[in-house]
Amino acid sequence: MWLLRQVLPKFWLDKGGIHAKVIGTLKTGQVHFLWYGDPALIASHTDELAAHLIRGCKEITRNMEERGGGIRNISLINMCDREPGYYQLLVETDTRDSMGANFINSILECCAQAIPAWFEDHLPDDVPVPEVIMSILSNYTPDCRVHAWVECPVTDLGDFEGGLGPEEFARRFYTAVRIAQIDPYRATTHNKGIFNGIDAVVLATANDFRAVEACGHTWAARSGKYKGLSKCSVTDGIFRFELEIPLAVGTVGGLTTLHPLAKRSLEMLGNPDASTLMQVIAATGLMQNFSAIRSLVTTGIQKGHMRMHLHNMLLRLEATESETTQAIKYFEDKTVSFPELRKFIDQLRSAVGAKSL
Amino acid sequence: MWLLRQVLPKFWLDKGGIHAKVIGTLKTGQVHFLWYGDPALIASHTDELAAHLIRGCKEITRNMEERGGGIRNISLINMCDREPGYYQLLVETDTRDSMGANFINSILECCAQAIPAWFEDHLPDDVPVPEVIMSILSNYTPDCRVHAWVECPVTDLGDFEGGLGPEEFARRFYTAVRIAQIDPYRATTHNKGIFNGIDAVVLATANDFRAVEACGHTWAARSGKYKGLSKCSVTDGIFRFELEIPLAVGTVGGLTTLHPLAKRSLEMLGNPDASTLMQVIAATGLMQNFSAIRSLVTTGIQKGHMRMHLHNMLLRLEATESETTQAIKYFEDKTVSFPELRKFIDQLRSAVGAKSL
Repeated sequence: MWLLRQVLPKFWLDKGGIHAKVIGTLKTGQVHFLWYGDPALIASHTDELAAHLIRGCKEITRNMEERGGGIRNISLINMCDREPGYYQLLVETDTRDSMGANFINSILECCAQAIPAWFEDHLPDDVPVPEVIMSILSNYTPDCRVHAWVECPVTDLGDFEGGLGPEEFARRFYTAVRIAQIDPYRATTHNKGIFNGIDAVVLATANDFRAVEACGHTWAARSGKYKGLSKCSVTDGIFRFELEIPLAVGTVGGLTTLHPLAKRSLEMLGNPDASTLMQVIAATGLMQNFSAIRSLVTTGIQKGHMRMHLHNMLLRLEATESETTQAIKYFEDKTVSFPELRKFIDQLRSAVGAKSL
Repeated sequence: MWLLRQVLPKFWLDKGGIHAKVIGTLKTGQVHFLWYGDPALIASHTDELAAHLIRGCKEITRNMEERGGGIRNISLINMCDREPGYYQLLVETDTRDSMGANFINSILECCAQAIPAWFEDHLPDDVPVPEVIMSILSNYTPDCRVHAWVECPVTDLGDFEGGLGPEEFARRFYTAVRIAQIDPYRATTHNKGIFNGIDAVVLATANDFRAVEACGHTWAARSGKYKGLSKCSVTDGIFRFELEIPLAVGTVGGLTTLHPLAKRSLEMLGNPDASTLMQVIAATGLMQNFSAIRSLVTTGIQKGHMRMHLHNMLLRLEATESETTQAIKYFEDKTVSFPELRKFIDQLRSAVGAKSL
C-alpha cells in the first residue's frame, strides 16, 4: 500500500489521502496461427516448443533480462472451438519500466518465424506446417493492473454545496456510482470522466492513450455488460470509493524521455518507475471521477463547467479586457450560457455606443 | 452515399475510393431520478410532462431550433427492475454541427429543476415527489452513427509484399479481421488501431477524444462480448472492408473554431459540417485499420514501425548527422532494434576513434 502524495487534492488531504497498489505487471502478446493437425500432438509438445522459442529470442531478451524483465511464460491456446484450426501462442512478459510494445512485438515476430521451422524439424513428416496469420502484442492487459482507493468515516465528509449533509451526500454519491453499474449509457459517460483524468497523465508522459483507453474499456465490458469502472460503498459508517483498472505504461523508452515535455512531466512526478506511474494515473482517474460525481449530485455539472467555458466564449465574442472583467463579475452568481453572455456583452457595447454618441 | 476524396490513400484511389454514409445524428441525455410512487401513474402522464419540459426549455433551445436542431423526443424509462424506484428521463436531441454537450446538459439541468415542481403541481397531494440524482448527457450515442467502407474485385487488389497474390492476401486479411471478432484480447488491439486513425482527426479538430473513445468501445461491447469494430467479407469475388461506429463530434462551438490549429485543420478539410466530419473520421479509422492489418498479414508490423522508430532511437543515442545517414542506409534491408542500432553506432564511433589515434 502506497500513499500518493503527488496527486493529493485538497479534499482528501486530511482524510487519509489516496491509497494505491499495483496488482500485477504482466503484459501479453499473441502469435495467431492456423494449423489443421491433431490437437493432442501439439498439446503434448507445448513445453518443448516454448523452451525452443525462448532460446531463439535470447538476442532480443538479453538486455531486458539484465534489467530483471523478459519472457515470463509461453503457452498455447487451442481456439478451434471458435474457428477451425485456429491457435494462439500466448507470450507473457515483464517489460519493467518500459511500455514494451517494441520488445513484445520483436519477440512475437521472432517466434512467428521459428514456429513453422520447428514443426518441420521436430514433428513427423506427415504433420502439417502451421500458417502464421499475424503476430502482435495485446493492448488488453488485465494482469498489468492497479487499484486506487479513498476511504473515511462518512461523518468526516463534512457539508456540501446547497446544505447537503455528509450522510445525504454519501447516499447520493453511492447511488450515482451504482447507476453507472446498471446502465451502459451512463457507464460510458462515467468512464469517459475517469479517462479525462487518466489521459491527462498518459498524454503528459508521452504514453499511448489509445492503448490505455482500449484496455480500460474492454476491462469495463469483461462481465458481458459494459459497466462503470469505479465502485462505491457505504458500510458501517465508512465511505469508500475505488478504481481498479489495467494500465500498460512506461517511464523509459519510446518518447517518454525523448520528448522534452514528457521528460519535464516525469521530473515533476519525481521520475517515477512504471509501477509508481500506474498508481499516479489510477489515482488521478479516481479523483477526476470523484470531482465530477460530487458536482453532479450537488450543484450539477454546468455551474463549474460553464464558468470554465466562459473564457472560451468571451474569446469567441472577441471581448475586450474590460468586457471580460465585467462579464466574470456579472456571472459570478448566475448560470452561464452563450445566449445570456451574448446578451450581456451586447448590452455593454450598446451602452458604450450610446455614451459615445 | 458520399465518396470521400479528402482522405483517399493511394491504394484505394483507383479502386473506387472510400464510401461513407451517416446513419443518424441523434444525441441523448439523461435525468436520473428516484421515485417511489405508482409506475402506472407516471406512465400515463409522460406525454404531458414531456410537453411541459419542452416548453420550459424554450429559452435554451430557441437558437438551436433556428438552426434546425433542438429536442427531438423526451421519454421516460422505468428502470425499477434494476434498482428500486429508479427512473430515467431520456432526452434525444439534434445538435446540428455542434458537439452539443453544453446544449444538452443545459436542457437536462432545466428539466431536472422542473420535474419535482411538476409533480407537486400536477399530481395528487399524496403522490411522492421525485429526487433527482443527476442530469448529464450520455457519451454513448448509438443513434449518432456513421458507416464507411471500401470494396473491389479481389483480383484488383494486386500483388503484395513477399509475392503474396490477391486471393491469398484477401483470405489472410479476412482471417485477421475474423480473429478480432472471436477474441477480446485481439479485438482490443484491433480497435486501438482504428482509434489511432480516428483520434488523429478528433484531436486535430479539437473534438473530445475521450468521448469518442468511450462511445466506440461501448459500441464494440454491445453484443455482450467485446469485438472488433470493423468487418471484412470476401463474397462472389468481391473484397469488402467496413466500419460502422457511433461518433459524436462538432465543427462549430467549443474549441473547434477558437483554437487556431483546430480552425486550420477544419480549413484543410474544406470546412466540413459535422456529418461530413463524421464520414472523414470513420474513413480515416478504416484506412488506419486497413494499413495495420495489411502490414500484419504480410511483412509484420515491426518492419515499418521500427523504421519509423529508428529516428527516435538515433536521437536517444545522440547520433550525429553523418551517423544518422549511415544508420538509415545500413538498416534499409535489415530489422531495426535498439541493441542492433547501438552496436552499429558503437562500431562507427570506435572506428572513428581508432582513425583519430
